[in-house]
Amino acid sequence: MNLSRDVALIGAGMTRFHNKIHADKTSREIFLEATLEAINSVDKNFEFKDIEALFLGTFSGDSFENQAHMAALMADWLGINPKPAIRIEDACASSGVAISMGAMAIASGLYDIVMVGGVEKMTSLDTNKVTDTLAMAADNLFEVSAGFTFPGLYASIATAHFAKHGSRWDQLAAVSIKNHYNGSLNPKAHFQTSVLDVAKKMGESRGLTFKDEMEFLRSPLNPVVAYPLRLFDCCPISDGAAVVILAEAKKAKRFTDTPIFLKGLGQASDTMCLSNREDLTSLKGTKIAAQQAYKMAGVKPKDIDLAVVHDCFTIAEILATEDLGFFPKGEGGVAAEEGRTAINGDKPVNPDGGLKAKGHPVGATGAAMAYEMFKQLRGEAGKHQIADAEIGLSHNVGASGATVTVQIYGK
Amino acid sequence: MNLSRDVALIGAGMTRFHNKIHADKTSREIFLEATLEAINSVDKNFEFKDIEALFLGTFSGDSFENQAHMAALMADWLGINPKPAIRIEDACASSGVAISMGAMAIASGLYDIVMVGGVEKMTSLDTNKVTDTLAMAADNLFEVSAGFTFPGLYASIATAHFAKHGSRWDQLAAVSIKNHYNGSLNPKAHFQTSVLDVAKKMGESRGLTFKDEMEFLRSPLNPVVAYPLRLFDCCPISDGAAVVILAEAKKAKRFTDTPIFLKGLGQASDTMCLSNREDLTSLKGTKIAAQQAYKMAGVKPKDIDLAVVHDCFTIAEILATEDLGFFPKGEGGVAAEEGRTAINGDKPVNPDGGLKAKGHPVGATGAAMAYEMFKQLRGEAGKHQIADAEIGLSHNVGASGATVTVQIYGK
Repeated sequence: MNLSRDVALIGAGMTRFHNKIHADKTSREIFLEATLEAINSVDKNFEFKDIEALFLGTFSGDSFENQAHMAALMADWLGINPKPAIRIEDACASSGVAISMGAMAIASGLYDIVMVGGVEKMTSLDTNKVTDTLAMAADNLFEVSAGFTFPGLYASIATAHFAKHGSRWDQLAAVSIKNHYNGSLNPKAHFQTSVLDVAKKMGESRGLTFKDEMEFLRSPLNPVVAYPLRLFDCCPISDGAAVVILAEAKKAKRFTDTPIFLKGLGQASDTMCLSNREDLTSLKGTKIAAQQAYKMAGVKPKDIDLAVVHDCFTIAEILATEDLGFFPKGEGGVAAEEGRTAINGDKPVNPDGGLKAKGHPVGATGAAMAYEMFKQLRGEAGKHQIADAEIGLSHNVGASGATVTVQIYGK
Repeated sequence: MNLSRDVALIGAGMTRFHNKIHADKTSREIFLEATLEAINSVDKNFEFKDIEALFLGTFSGDSFENQAHMAALMADWLGINPKPAIRIEDACASSGVAISMGAMAIASGLYDIVMVGGVEKMTSLDTNKVTDTLAMAADNLFEVSAGFTFPGLYASIATAHFAKHGSRWDQLAAVSIKNHYNGSLNPKAHFQTSVLDVAKKMGESRGLTFKDEMEFLRSPLNPVVAYPLRLFDCCPISDGAAVVILAEAKKAKRFTDTPIFLKGLGQASDTMCLSNREDLTSLKGTKIAAQQAYKMAGVKPKDIDLAVVHDCFTIAEILATEDLGFFPKGEGGVAAEEGRTAINGDKPVNPDGGLKAKGHPVGATGAAMAYEMFKQLRGEAGKHQIADAEIGLSHNVGASGATVTVQIYGK
């Protein structure tokens, strides 16, 4: 099915994702910073009062800041009230889903212009408590109570993928090296250092030398978190926010000569528990959501010029590039090793550094993917620009795949 | 503005709201119970697989059950997956807002049939912790840190209303007596005892006698919670769930000969902090959301045959009946005293017992209001049926009014 009215992005903003620079701010201040950039990014004729509704994706202000009812809070602090404000929570896919909800709201005929954003202030809790908080997105009765948190769940996915498809840890490391390199080109990224930079720095300080990045990643300096996932296979804990402004497609022209169109969207759910899945080496939700989005957009995987995918752990990027149809099942790791997903590869993935290096303030990630789409397709992505990008895909996952949303954007 | 496609209710279900009967269940089991009733309530041709998406309003599984990502969890437990599942959180208006989102999703052209529900399992926490958890819906930085929880916030509204409009506590008590009486007629209500029943029972057990309900409510047996609000001015802490099934209006006829149409909807936000409001004796959000809903439905306050309004505290019902335009400002209390809002009054309000007696499992309340609309307008409300009800209004408030959503239903 298609939307009754087409939808375009006319503006986008995001804060840098980081674990320290937002330490003195609450989420309302972080969100305001992203909003101001989004508002100022609209090319012409735009006024704050043009915004008719706010859709906010955020995971758990409840736990992170003792603050629920975040959408109304943001509407208040932005001065958007009395416009309606709706919070969406679908775990780490919260703001990816919020973008679909914003698009549906426009397509419904009720609004012409809406703001969609995401925010998370995670560092207000101790690191160990953050992992417990995130685990609330898994099944508390049947997974968390058995000792699982997300590194363990994705480690299970990785070992299953190794066993079934012959993938190797080196391929995970290749994803990490690529995404850290890409992050070094992105001024919004949490980590702006390549693995080589890190290796050199740690080598110098400890009197070690390193032949190459892979050697560093194999060393005890990159400890195992949950076998086979090591530290550099896991995304960091970050604070941050991202915002996009959506408009009904015909009205978008009033605000910019270069709107970016939301061509396709899809969303699917799957079992909460990994143990209930037929196959651990694939996210069924990704496949189904992608099918919906490809169909609506009238494109195929080969038509995608670049993708931002949900690499909360390196194995997740390998699954995504397979499940999205970029590479045959079992060949995502090989493709990463061969450099095919690099910025200059034939299928660039996560040129912004991905969750791995850009960071993953969970509720903000989906909106940050839309921000990257907006920048890339307008040729405004700076050092990590993909040349001649015409069609982009974003892929945002909640938990271990119980929610997946896919969006396809085009000029 | 209007929705591009009209939307109808074709089914509805809810559990009894209660503080004890769901004690051994988790929210997934409570929600399943409401869903099964909703599914079975559809008159004909309906299959579970007809549901294309789930919109779930819930406030804070995070705090109540260490469980976030609730929409995907429910989709899993209901067997709806891989259909998309979206959680909405706007404090106590979560599932009221979810109904609007479900309606927009249908109007967008993306879906024809969606399920919208709400659930909250509150009694898993100690009572004092529940009050703290609910307070996360207020401004944590500027209200909660100053000592406010919701009884205090609504007490401030009450004293302001007393001062400005000459309302009296007796009028609050009249709301409580009415809603408890109505609850005694509703088998789904948490409290199914009138205030007189309670007074008699407590009088007998303590050797006291009571002239009437008002005398009981004035006695120390009804202690002050936050002046001027006493225990019987406050809604209880309840567990429960409610579910409605929405369909594109033309397709609704396939499933029932008596669909109930969603004629109008509105939503508005206001400042989080009471201290930033121009006037404490009115919810601006109610006025604006109601204006939108009345306009879309093409009706006026005088056309509303019955209303379910958000009486989390008795003063809130008085504000609502004024702000919705049923009575002039300052006359809501008088109207309650005069019995005009009783089931047999000229403007029946909360015939189901309202939040006061029916209970208020916060995330479920908006959906339970839609359930009541469905039953009343089909003439299936049993002992609390409003005769010849043609047009109904529901009014669901988040926090102290930072979110308000209004829906108007008709045959």
